[in-house]
Amino acid sequence: MSGDRAPLELLKGAVTAAEEYRVPITVVGDREVIERVAKENTLSLENVEIAHADDVISMEDKPLSIIREKSNSSMGVGLRMLQNGEGDAFLSAGNTGALLAGSTLLVRRIRGIRRAAIATFLPFPTPVLLMDAGANLVVTSDDLEQFAYMGSFYMKKLHGIEKPRVGLLNNGAEATKGLPLQIETYEQLSANPDINFIGNVEAKDIPFNTCDVLLTDGFTGNIVLKYTEGMGKFMLSTLKQLFTKNAITKASAFAMKGQLSALKKQFDASEYGGAPLLGISRPVIKAHGSSDAKAIKNAVLQTIAFLSTGMNHEIARMAAELDLKNREKKKVEESESSATE
Amino acid sequence: MSGDRAPLELLKGAVTAAEEYRVPITVVGDREVIERVAKENTLSLENVEIAHADDVISMEDKPLSIIREKSNSSMGVGLRMLQNGEGDAFLSAGNTGALLAGSTLLVRRIRGIRRAAIATFLPFPTPVLLMDAGANLVVTSDDLEQFAYMGSFYMKKLHGIEKPRVGLLNNGAEATKGLPLQIETYEQLSANPDINFIGNVEAKDIPFNTCDVLLTDGFTGNIVLKYTEGMGKFMLSTLKQLFTKNAITKASAFAMKGQLSALKKQFDASEYGGAPLLGISRPVIKAHGSSDAKAIKNAVLQTIAFLSTGMNHEIARMAAELDLKNREKKKVEESESSATE
Repeated sequence: MSGDRAPLELLKGAVTAAEEYRVPITVVGDREVIERVAKENTLSLENVEIAHADDVISMEDKPLSIIREKSNSSMGVGLRMLQNGEGDAFLSAGNTGALLAGSTLLVRRIRGIRRAAIATFLPFPTPVLLMDAGANLVVTSDDLEQFAYMGSFYMKKLHGIEKPRVGLLNNGAEATKGLPLQIETYEQLSANPDINFIGNVEAKDIPFNTCDVLLTDGFTGNIVLKYTEGMGKFMLSTLKQLFTKNAITKASAFAMKGQLSALKKQFDASEYGGAPLLGISRPVIKAHGSSDAKAIKNAVLQTIAFLSTGMNHEIARMAAELDLKNREKKKVEESESSATE
Repeated sequence: MSGDRAPLELLKGAVTAAEEYRVPITVVGDREVIERVAKENTLSLENVEIAHADDVISMEDKPLSIIREKSNSSMGVGLRMLQNGEGDAFLSAGNTGALLAGSTLLVRRIRGIRRAAIATFLPFPTPVLLMDAGANLVVTSDDLEQFAYMGSFYMKKLHGIEKPRVGLLNNGAEATKGLPLQIETYEQLSANPDINFIGNVEAKDIPFNTCDVLLTDGFTGNIVLKYTEGMGKFMLSTLKQLFTKNAITKASAFAMKGQLSALKKQFDASEYGGAPLLGISRPVIKAHGSSDAKAIKNAVLQTIAFLSTGMNHEIARMAAELDLKNREKKKVEESESSATE
């Protein structure tokens, strides 16, 4: 029920995905509205189930509304279903803050994971996994280290990259650049043999196959993600103007049609589908707020792929190991400090 | 002497600008090197003066090196010349942190200005003045309010925009979005009748004529600035690939040559020249680190334009007024709090 184009486009996407991929899908929302919209648009509901929810979380609602006044929203009901095992994954195009809060408080994080992060692909020829793309506005270097592990697993499992290159988004290449967060993270990741850390990445190098996983806080990540979208749109509209200037350029546009639509497809948000909230104990996938039917269908496909990876087991194992390592480090530090006393 | 392409390209730019714009230019650096490079490249030095400096600040040097171990660097000598009135403006393609530190500590800020900011244009059809583009990684809402004044003056004086639209870069449109910095700034600017504040701007809307001045901290500003450069480059290289696919697309490329070079020009960093450090008592202009001769020449032109605006007087007047207003506000608050005691 939430997202800019709910309920029709979301419903269409769910119905098409259920038919095409033959997966059981439950749509969560106001039963009456769903049935009416389906009827008005001659959409068959025979391949989807409906779970009723009275309420809707809007983009303006506070994150915690999902466990308070809006616990009967479609998002709240859906997340509780996931929590209770009445489904294997949850997909939403709604309020990101509420989705993160609900996932964390209801479905819960994987034991040992400090924060869940949104992992989104930036659509370059060699895709870049941006983490965090907007879930946590403030993070610590320990959070970013966990994101590095989770992002590396994801790229390995889903894209078959053996040792994903992890970069840290920063305002310069040198180790001394950035805020204390970046300086600390640089040091911490450089000393971690499990992570293939390639150092700081400047924003101008993002498109050019510099790293596979790009680490940043959720505020900066949100800016990068949305600017990618805006710049893609801007470039396409500029091209369109160039091509419609005169008869010759119009003829060129005709000749180039296939190439241009490939370019458009590359930057079309609906093509890249959903972004997982990595670190939550069961798969929660965030689709773009403006998702249409095609985007939802793609996000369902991505959810199926995610489920097939068994990634969460790897994350849990990593978190346990990391926890053990940190405890040992702490013990050593304590014994060292008591020895010097 | 600093910048990625020093000294030859910088020298070429200075020499061409001195000839073309008929302004007296002093190049600061190692006299021997400058004279040798000029000779090797048959550059005439008859229209420029040389001020000798032994040392160079590198991109890796700490900001404060400019007043310590590297005070005899080209940047240090140049800024002291500006401080002493042996020149009307200073232009550098070197280390941004050192330039800011040197400008602040030697040339000094305009009285009442808390922080100087780099003001850079993002090259869209309606250009957007980004502030701060990288001088201050951390800022307060009071800093951003001053940036709003300075940016508005700049757009008014240089671009003739009567009431420049000021936007705040944020991760959502609503007033409640962002970190405490953004929430406080939103509130403060909404209550300021001197500023034409249009609210939060999401990164996806930056290219589409949403605001004239875009406020952000220097960390995020640096990311936005460099990503603009990277995305521009990426789009052009993608286009090039599309056009060289086959005979038809190659013919199209030929037909579109003029249009494509216009697009290239738009995103060519050398075309937009220099960015002023607004808030410093005398004009200091930062050119891109990779500036070539053309970029330096353009930056000189921008410096001349800046000098002709008398902007610093306006900023000084504003800072004094703002200071007075804040003192009065403080007085009222104090008397109110003592009244309730």
